[in-house]
Amino acid sequence: MSSEDQPFVEFRVDPERYRHWRVGFDGPVATVTMDVDEAGGLVPGYELKLNSYDLGVDIELYDITQRLRFEHPEVKAVVMTSGKDKIFCAGANIRMLAASPHGWKVNFCKFTNETRNGIEDATANSGQVWIAALNGTASGGGYELALACEHIMLVDDRSSSVSLPELPLLGVLPGTGGLTRVVDKRHVRRDLADYFSTRPEGLSGKKAAAWRLIDETVPRPAWEQTVAERARQAAAASHRSQGRSQGHGAGISLTPLAKDRSEGQISYRYVEARLDRARAAAEITVKGPDDNPPEDANGIHEQGPDFWTLAMTRELDDLILDLRTNEPELGTWVLRTTGHADAVLAYDQLLLTNKDDWLAAEITLYVKRTLKRLDVTSRSLIALIEPGSCFAGSLLELALAADRSYQLAGVFEDEDPDADPAAITVGPMNLGPLPMGNGLTRLQTRFLGDDDALAAAEKSSNEPQLAADAQQKGLVTFAPDDIDWADEVRIAIEERASFSPDALSGLEANYRFAGPETLETKIFGRLSAWQNWIFNRPNASGPDGALRKFGTGQRADFDRRRV
Amino acid sequence: MSSEDQPFVEFRVDPERYRHWRVGFDGPVATVTMDVDEAGGLVPGYELKLNSYDLGVDIELYDITQRLRFEHPEVKAVVMTSGKDKIFCAGANIRMLAASPHGWKVNFCKFTNETRNGIEDATANSGQVWIAALNGTASGGGYELALACEHIMLVDDRSSSVSLPELPLLGVLPGTGGLTRVVDKRHVRRDLADYFSTRPEGLSGKKAAAWRLIDETVPRPAWEQTVAERARQAAAASHRSQGRSQGHGAGISLTPLAKDRSEGQISYRYVEARLDRARAAAEITVKGPDDNPPEDANGIHEQGPDFWTLAMTRELDDLILDLRTNEPELGTWVLRTTGHADAVLAYDQLLLTNKDDWLAAEITLYVKRTLKRLDVTSRSLIALIEPGSCFAGSLLELALAADRSYQLAGVFEDEDPDADPAAITVGPMNLGPLPMGNGLTRLQTRFLGDDDALAAAEKSSNEPQLAADAQQKGLVTFAPDDIDWADEVRIAIEERASFSPDALSGLEANYRFAGPETLETKIFGRLSAWQNWIFNRPNASGPDGALRKFGTGQRADFDRRRV
Repeated sequence: MSSEDQPFVEFRVDPERYRHWRVGFDGPVATVTMDVDEAGGLVPGYELKLNSYDLGVDIELYDITQRLRFEHPEVKAVVMTSGKDKIFCAGANIRMLAASPHGWKVNFCKFTNETRNGIEDATANSGQVWIAALNGTASGGGYELALACEHIMLVDDRSSSVSLPELPLLGVLPGTGGLTRVVDKRHVRRDLADYFSTRPEGLSGKKAAAWRLIDETVPRPAWEQTVAERARQAAAASHRSQGRSQGHGAGISLTPLAKDRSEGQISYRYVEARLDRARAAAEITVKGPDDNPPEDANGIHEQGPDFWTLAMTRELDDLILDLRTNEPELGTWVLRTTGHADAVLAYDQLLLTNKDDWLAAEITLYVKRTLKRLDVTSRSLIALIEPGSCFAGSLLELALAADRSYQLAGVFEDEDPDADPAAITVGPMNLGPLPMGNGLTRLQTRFLGDDDALAAAEKSSNEPQLAADAQQKGLVTFAPDDIDWADEVRIAIEERASFSPDALSGLEANYRFAGPETLETKIFGRLSAWQNWIFNRPNASGPDGALRKFGTGQRADFDRRRV
Repeated sequence: MSSEDQPFVEFRVDPERYRHWRVGFDGPVATVTMDVDEAGGLVPGYELKLNSYDLGVDIELYDITQRLRFEHPEVKAVVMTSGKDKIFCAGANIRMLAASPHGWKVNFCKFTNETRNGIEDATANSGQVWIAALNGTASGGGYELALACEHIMLVDDRSSSVSLPELPLLGVLPGTGGLTRVVDKRHVRRDLADYFSTRPEGLSGKKAAAWRLIDETVPRPAWEQTVAERARQAAAASHRSQGRSQGHGAGISLTPLAKDRSEGQISYRYVEARLDRARAAAEITVKGPDDNPPEDANGIHEQGPDFWTLAMTRELDDLILDLRTNEPELGTWVLRTTGHADAVLAYDQLLLTNKDDWLAAEITLYVKRTLKRLDVTSRSLIALIEPGSCFAGSLLELALAADRSYQLAGVFEDEDPDADPAAITVGPMNLGPLPMGNGLTRLQTRFLGDDDALAAAEKSSNEPQLAADAQQKGLVTFAPDDIDWADEVRIAIEERASFSPDALSGLEANYRFAGPETLETKIFGRLSAWQNWIFNRPNASGPDGALRKFGTGQRADFDRRRV
């Protein structure tokens, strides 16, 4: 696979078409079985042996995590296990990695990380507790997948183990969460972690448990029963579907997402993107709701996948994934909204008023995850706030996630002199329910170290801010008037396209994550950045690098100088 | 400069030989004037125009920071300014960067970061408050240098500005602290920071102050007086030389460090390293004190540079810098100690008992900084704890900083059957005075999330732990006996040499910094890792990359795909 003939990747999938996973249901327990089709690689040229995965396998897993949350409110524990004998999962497919261009590897790892963070989010915030039932060896990315689960059980059969063989065998890192989760989540002692990560055969049994690499080791005869027992316990302890959700027990169906894609445009019902290849930009517009929201939680359930917030978020999620993977040359995303701020705020309020309803809660959590996806997207984000837009509450987060925002002071005199001038509105959704990966709201990150400005911004809640006020409060970057608007915006976009794409990715990855670091930001910042560097080094990816030499019987020829 | 003909770099320097800096003293205020000798580059092939710097300029600055702390206890404020007209500092020399191999760039940036962190440490912990008096433009690394200071003043003369032109002009990051300090230390709003960092001409005057990029702008006529006034104020507010230090007002002299360097060995009085090129390892031995410590703080002052802790730390510091820069192929550092644990603990205790004495405090802070240098060193660190060693207190930190430690259970029967078995001792120095960059002690980082183990380790203070106990308490990694020792150690060192050097650097950079992140760890982890990646990309360093094309009048030819 060269970058020139990179395949077009479709992220929409439905269970009927799964090639690599099975999902079974037994009351509050779902069992997700990984059973990768060797011949089902996304790209020709490799076989997915030993339950190894590529992006296509991960796309199905992401779909599973989403459907479990929306279609199965009754599920409170998720057992992840393998359909193969003796092997849970061998991690990312090495031949795929070796043949992939740098950008593909990095993008693949990012998506993989996001799905794993989503598994942790389901465990922590949706009461769907994921259990890794390792009925065979989990190595590399296979063990990393287990690390995303709340509880790790390993069968004790004298052959199954957990391992991170990336460093000794491939000359790269366990870079999709592995290194970070081993020490920061599971609290494996750092020197033991060092030893473990240099040992291709890994560890098993009581030693693996004593070192905290797994939670328990279970003899083969007691396996099925113990797994079932742990799932029952997790389900019993889960907080899912408590509170006011009783009347809304049934899941909603994530119906197929309607999408129209041409050379120059991607359109959904509420989201569209114009692909401006000449300017290396995607012009994204998110439409607000057509109507007022339903009156109560019943209405959310009745509308299901058509409920505006959910429908819009699914579309935006798919668009982000599509553009990231299929349009790497569109380096700038211009973010616009159209619609009525009041309607957006009313939808937000309905979700927050019913936050004890499982579906309302799931929708808000999904908005949160989708915005986080935007935060770690390696594209310049520029928000344009114009008359007729609805940057309010949840949609204001798009502007707060942007690297810069421009709000028109006044109106476009030639276009519509009688329009209401562009406004933005802070709402309750900006004050807590949609935190970034660093644990802060986007407003808190924005006003880091400036508590007065933060308080003033928060205090402006529900009051539309025209450009001058919004700029004075620090909520937008620039507030040009009609005379300057076109030039300022044009220059900003053209200038972005003239800069080094790599330096922009680095700059944005640093400025977007001001403030504290968490497991999640450490994975995307520290760990991924090191892995990106290593992926780019001849010692890994050169013709004599370890990734290329793996499986050839030849040893990699390393440049021994430490950097 | 190619990696093959990389010059040998000497870090020992004394003020008589400074080529790029002048230091003046006026009571409690020192003025450090940057006046770079254009012809004084460390390597042929570039001129250090416009007060741009290379490693040689930074080595002198590091020497200045050290001498101010030890030789000038009377100095409470340090004004950093420029000896050139209209320019404070243009940052790292671009031709030097463009011509340097990847490893040189990364090592240079690391040292630069360490010196800047040292400036912040002097301000925070020694009461030597650094003030950046920008009497001309500070761009790129020049502004980053200012960011390390506590207070930034910029002359208002309609031409001087501050700027970070790395991204727009060079396609790299302001990677030696710049991006992190702008948002995390100075709390510049992230969208303003984004704009600022894309604007080669930077900002000046009231706007720079309003955006928090500087603290104040001062008209040229009031410049001298205002700078003097700020220095006086800072000195007056400084906590330096308070407490019990009254009797010990005079500084001590950092006399030239005696060092013997041959092809296979580097020897100082208390530190030596055997360079084992065949095994790609440096075998480092730190000797404990020859005698008991003096009785009181007077004795520390009398011994001055010969006081064991200071002498040993200066040697270790120089060795780390020497090996990092001059011996990149020695990928593993084996750490040993010899001497009496009781004596080490007695020296530690003397320093802690007299922690209000300025010199005792400075010595402890210097030990802390030197150990931090070890933490960010891209070499595998293996501690070997054998009979006759003195891994206690401050020297135990070497083992705690290591990626792994091996402690011999018992003695070497053939060598000295009557020896005392190897022991380690936790002491007060391990419980707080020597934190890592993440703000935790090495014991706290080691036992992250395991409070019981941490408490047990801390409780063992002052009790020598033999191998079995030390391993059981988690203080060492492995405790082989005489029969297994040689093989286990040999395999560990040989194995390390067989792995990808890049993957090892990445692994270690992640495992060593478990736990919280700080300004400092974000600079070394997140920011540096991104910069390393960018430095390694063709868009920056390839023949058509921005670093190579700078100054040629030609534009860089970027691969536009976002990664």
